[in-house]
Amino acid sequence: MNRDTFGQALRLTLFGESHGPAIGCVVEGLRPGTPLDMDFMAAQLARRRGPRALSTARREADGVELLSGAYQGRCTGTALCLCIRNGDTRSGDYAKSACLLRPGHGDYTGRVKYMGYNDPRGGGHFSGRLTAPIVAAGSIFLFLLREKGVFIGTRLRAVGNIEDTEAFSQEAGAFQGQLQALGEGEIPVLNPGAAAQMEAAIAAVRAEGDSLGGILETQVLGLPPGLGEPFFGTVESQLGALLFALPAVKGVEFGAGFQMASLKGSQANDPFRMEGGRVVTSTNHNGGINGGITNGMPLVLRTAVKPTPSIYKPQETVDICRRENAALCIEGRHDPCIAHRAAVVQDSLIALGLCDLLNQALGLSWQGGALWPEEAPWNMD
Amino acid sequence: MNRDTFGQALRLTLFGESHGPAIGCVVEGLRPGTPLDMDFMAAQLARRRGPRALSTARREADGVELLSGAYQGRCTGTALCLCIRNGDTRSGDYAKSACLLRPGHGDYTGRVKYMGYNDPRGGGHFSGRLTAPIVAAGSIFLFLLREKGVFIGTRLRAVGNIEDTEAFSQEAGAFQGQLQALGEGEIPVLNPGAAAQMEAAIAAVRAEGDSLGGILETQVLGLPPGLGEPFFGTVESQLGALLFALPAVKGVEFGAGFQMASLKGSQANDPFRMEGGRVVTSTNHNGGINGGITNGMPLVLRTAVKPTPSIYKPQETVDICRRENAALCIEGRHDPCIAHRAAVVQDSLIALGLCDLLNQALGLSWQGGALWPEEAPWNMD
Amino acid sequence: MNRDTFGQALRLTLFGESHGPAIGCVVEGLRPGTPLDMDFMAAQLARRRGPRALSTARREADGVELLSGAYQGRCTGTALCLCIRNGDTRSGDYAKSACLLRPGHGDYTGRVKYMGYNDPRGGGHFSGRLTAPIVAAGSIFLFLLREKGVFIGTRLRAVGNIEDTEAFSQEAGAFQGQLQALGEGEIPVLNPGAAAQMEAAIAAVRAEGDSLGGILETQVLGLPPGLGEPFFGTVESQLGALLFALPAVKGVEFGAGFQMASLKGSQANDPFRMEGGRVVTSTNHNGGINGGITNGMPLVLRTAVKPTPSIYKPQETVDICRRENAALCIEGRHDPCIAHRAAVVQDSLIALGLCDLLNQALGLSWQGGALWPEEAPWNMD
Amino acid sequence: MNRDTFGQALRLTLFGESHGPAIGCVVEGLRPGTPLDMDFMAAQLARRRGPRALSTARREADGVELLSGAYQGRCTGTALCLCIRNGDTRSGDYAKSACLLRPGHGDYTGRVKYMGYNDPRGGGHFSGRLTAPIVAAGSIFLFLLREKGVFIGTRLRAVGNIEDTEAFSQEAGAFQGQLQALGEGEIPVLNPGAAAQMEAAIAAVRAEGDSLGGILETQVLGLPPGLGEPFFGTVESQLGALLFALPAVKGVEFGAGFQMASLKGSQANDPFRMEGGRVVTSTNHNGGINGGITNGMPLVLRTAVKPTPSIYKPQETVDICRRENAALCIEGRHDPCIAHRAAVVQDSLIALGLCDLLNQALGLSWQGGALWPEEAPWNMD
Repeated sequence: MNRDTFGQALRLTLFGESHGPAIGCVVEGLRPGTPLDMDFMAAQLARRRGPRALSTARREADGVELLSGAYQGRCTGTALCLCIRNGDTRSGDYAKSACLLRPGHGDYTGRVKYMGYNDPRGGGHFSGRLTAPIVAAGSIFLFLLREKGVFIGTRLRAVGNIEDTEAFSQEAGAFQGQLQALGEGEIPVLNPGAAAQMEAAIAAVRAEGDSLGGILETQVLGLPPGLGEPFFGTVESQLGALLFALPAVKGVEFGAGFQMASLKGSQANDPFRMEGGRVVTSTNHNGGINGGITNGMPLVLRTAVKPTPSIYKPQETVDICRRENAALCIEGRHDPCIAHRAAVVQDSLIALGLCDLLNQALGLSWQGGALWPEEAPWNMD
Repeated sequence: MNRDTFGQALRLTLFGESHGPAIGCVVEGLRPGTPLDMDFMAAQLARRRGPRALSTARREADGVELLSGAYQGRCTGTALCLCIRNGDTRSGDYAKSACLLRPGHGDYTGRVKYMGYNDPRGGGHFSGRLTAPIVAAGSIFLFLLREKGVFIGTRLRAVGNIEDTEAFSQEAGAFQGQLQALGEGEIPVLNPGAAAQMEAAIAAVRAEGDSLGGILETQVLGLPPGLGEPFFGTVESQLGALLFALPAVKGVEFGAGFQMASLKGSQANDPFRMEGGRVVTSTNHNGGINGGITNGMPLVLRTAVKPTPSIYKPQETVDICRRENAALCIEGRHDPCIAHRAAVVQDSLIALGLCDLLNQALGLSWQGGALWPEEAPWNMD
Repeated sequence: MNRDTFGQALRLTLFGESHGPAIGCVVEGLRPGTPLDMDFMAAQLARRRGPRALSTARREADGVELLSGAYQGRCTGTALCLCIRNGDTRSGDYAKSACLLRPGHGDYTGRVKYMGYNDPRGGGHFSGRLTAPIVAAGSIFLFLLREKGVFIGTRLRAVGNIEDTEAFSQEAGAFQGQLQALGEGEIPVLNPGAAAQMEAAIAAVRAEGDSLGGILETQVLGLPPGLGEPFFGTVESQLGALLFALPAVKGVEFGAGFQMASLKGSQANDPFRMEGGRVVTSTNHNGGINGGITNGMPLVLRTAVKPTPSIYKPQETVDICRRENAALCIEGRHDPCIAHRAAVVQDSLIALGLCDLLNQALGLSWQGGALWPEEAPWNMD
Repeated sequence: MNRDTFGQALRLTLFGESHGPAIGCVVEGLRPGTPLDMDFMAAQLARRRGPRALSTARREADGVELLSGAYQGRCTGTALCLCIRNGDTRSGDYAKSACLLRPGHGDYTGRVKYMGYNDPRGGGHFSGRLTAPIVAAGSIFLFLLREKGVFIGTRLRAVGNIEDTEAFSQEAGAFQGQLQALGEGEIPVLNPGAAAQMEAAIAAVRAEGDSLGGILETQVLGLPPGLGEPFFGTVESQLGALLFALPAVKGVEFGAGFQMASLKGSQANDPFRMEGGRVVTSTNHNGGINGGITNGMPLVLRTAVKPTPSIYKPQETVDICRRENAALCIEGRHDPCIAHRAAVVQDSLIALGLCDLLNQALGLSWQGGALWPEEAPWNMD
């Protein structure tokens, strides 16, 4: 049951290898008539490529071709296939060391799972490059959510030991301003001072031939209460499963997360009160989720992104062809840190997960449609 | 799409309300002929109930009736229905405060999601009591895994600020000894000294009418490499989704987890080497998972369990019937800490997730069967 | 992947064995607040048991216990577990011939699939008795559909060579009158004269120790256009999969069905025209489905039900324990024809399939709910 | 929940529109190392295009590009994306009559379902052209089955009232000879005399501007007993759902099918006997399936294919833009009969369904793999 698919009422199937002909995805469950904003898609893909100075030297144009499911600039409602051709591949870089397992990578486990038949070039299907179609499709999901007043933003909370000390605003207008700024900066932080420090830290590890990890924090404003399920489909399960699909994520927490363990109930509980006719909570240690279901407060989560495993320092490893210990010096083009580039991927995955939950709850009618003929919009005049 | 189901090749569907006639689950995909060890099942349920002194005063016999899928002490291979009758219910305790939303609970979100029709007594479907059928079924999954040499253990790593300072052994025999001890203690810790301190801490918050959270740590030994998927079915996604279904879990991390964010690649990477003809890693910061797939090293994960939201201290809340602010004093019978009781639930959920992955990879043949007639065991003699 | 589950947005999981403690099902995805009409449920179960003179001598009370998901006479929206205890079992009847494979039954294939561990008593999980929980749950789905003006009726079109020569009315009121009559008769036919002939034919084969098959025809009125999918989720696929789950069904056809093969396009096409502001077709050879999707015309389908395989005539078979040829004389209590009893099961399965499609299309909002808080009904006054 | 996906342990997701940039599919769950026989794939696609004289004048090269999941001529085990560019489109033919609903087509239902946003050119996603990727992928499934000794063949049993009077052989060698001949003929029949008659009949309706339907019959030899499920996953349900996805199929029957209704049990039951150490049946009215599960006998099924709805005779219909009655004269390029072209699609769909069932039962190990490291083939020498 080799799975490259996520979602129930909105479904994304991922395909491609880093150095194969193309990467892409098929999306099922999009509202017929959803506008396709190709400029926004391109802008999100540019954010994923990251600033040239801090990222891999591999530069891909990431032109997206819509193979199906689109007509006259809108989604038709049938399966949408997004396809991105691979161009700037230098497979030779990998051929030299095909037998040497890169520590921290999927080389060994991929070889076992796929019995040696997987495409080893550039990590094959295990490449971070596969996040590009997720970002392309994610731009459509983010568009749909914005239409309903739901806004998602992810910032780099920390790189190594350097923290972004500003906080997300819980006020809708101010938050949208922050999102604007995050999209424009080279490093997605709220405090511009942190960006400079982080860039310096990344440049320093790059100079050493080493790499750094980080923490990403996401806030979602505008979600209605009632999304999610009490047990196997909690919002935490849904988003946690998606975020753990992001290569390099080794931890996910919601609200106060691991800090919850050292709080008392009287500190951790978020008291309810009425405000403007709505039920709100005074604090938000639960990150907008009670009993697995959204409560209408800001959804807050954090992920731990490990340092890029591809480093230029010599490493001990195994030559799997000869089945003996060996030394490894990685060549090729790699990022000294991917946490900042992963922010837009995290936004995209969360948008996928939330649109799936909304589709589950509301079906086509959320999407503007109606089944009983007297209500069908095209039937109306 | 109200979902109470988890799994693909092994599937569990949960049903029941805290004060309804019964709770239970249906399990699909069990190997025909799997022995049903009802003593082990009862022992696991006893562990879930926890030590009387530290747990809710509600005492349920938790007798499990096998309604289907069992014959002559073994699984038939058809849907297995486990049913546990509810007995010691005092719904009156809840009726008084049915309109008062308990902070940190699913009262408000359940009311929104189910439009006011959910059973409010004892939290209804949102009750921790629903973990009993998971533990009952989990005892079967744990049995299946042990048969293949896979052992799972969960210990209370911390309660509040008190830590269990011992570590799991990575040696199979010693680890099994630790599991034995964990099953026998009232508090599942490796260092007996920690147990006493934790008990004291829990007793202290109980006296205050307050509650405490904790951190649970799990180790799995004996897994083969090659389990899981590179993207949407990573082992982290599969187990993360299950663990975030555990009420009160607000964080999940694998290997070094959130500490990964402050390491360099040269520190975080786990070097490969040959040992006894097998590929192993010298360190295990990745918790036994590379590229989303098991690498044969110990699987290590931790969850953050929030303090029980039901506390006896007065709290601010909303009267949802009158839609006005109100004060709440919770009555009923509640745990001052559930982290220690959750350990056996965590074992059970992980066993479910791993059996599902093994079934996906190996199908019935892992389960001892064979399809081509010349290989069918009942055809053999 | 042993599966006892059907549906996506409405999901039914079946459990039980003919002579085990209980049979039942779990239903996920029901609208919170759906009324539970236990009298209608009991009446449908009585229809499934059939008239005493023409049916098995096994008489079960079929009392349904709601183990979960119900509160104050309504569905809560969480998993609903329906449980029916088995009572009148005479397993001894089966023990004598446990090694003798009954022709036309699942004895042999069940033994292979379940490696000899399945419960052989009364056919175990392969028993027609498992259709009782489907009918119990189906009564809820039929209720939901009726609320939206959707009516389903199944009649016995033929038994052996005797046909019911009347036709279903396409006019809503007249059709409901026919449904009323079908529910009251011992044999569900439109022409009362046919009933008498069919009863005589069934009595005749019973006297011979033989059995008869039949054809069931279903009409659904009131479906909106737009339900279903163009490829793998056509209405025909959805309902076909369900109907082929009905033990004994060996054929399914929609509209003109197999007669389509000998028509020309100019005869088979259903011309469109406007009528009362709606698009209708002048004929209905396509049975209300174009391109896999409902077109608003009556949905029409037929199933072929094979003669009951349990007959009292001596038959040739294999003794699977000795692996040698043997003679079989079936004892136990069996039906000379099950086609008339299957009519209410067919209604129930179709109701499941259509409610699932409606839930997929419309989500909770069809169910009367609303997610955005300003629209939530409990928030309204 | 717009669905273009089928399968559980082997999964195919279809995408594309008749006149869009490309059509294709993504296949998940293929055995790593499966050879990709591109010549066989091309030959199957040529069979689907059909003989020029009897088919649409639209001629597509149907060149298949493997966008992902393939390396060095074999499947890698990751998602395989097959892509076929559309070339010979003449959308102008359709533009003239875009508002006129074609009777028997999905024009009206597609418009309702997709709220007017679907691509109307050439039927869009509702086109028979979408079967090309199914055939391309099917060639891989057929290859996998042949490797295990499972052979599938479909012949045109009837066109209009002309029957193919020969029968499939149940002897493996002779059946493979028949398959060879079916693949080479222009019309897939067993009796060459029938081919000439059918060609004449099709030519005659073409001359009238009309069309014909037909009946397809499939036999599968070599299946092991034990595949399928007793209820919702019967072999009939699995294959029935797939075959009802084939545009134009309005009926599916297994074994004696609808004739079962007029047989007595003593005629319909297939007696068991021992033969060469195996359990076989003397007759095969059940078409190789008992209790929903294969019994090792030949699997036999038939489908009813309706006449092509696109005919050149004038038809009554509705102008959906003006919402008034109108006359329709279809232009464009259409087939006078598609039943003969559908034979290879039917083979492909059945192969998909059976490989999915085999994967479910046997997992990767059927596919030649092994999970426990001491058994891994690449670990062996």
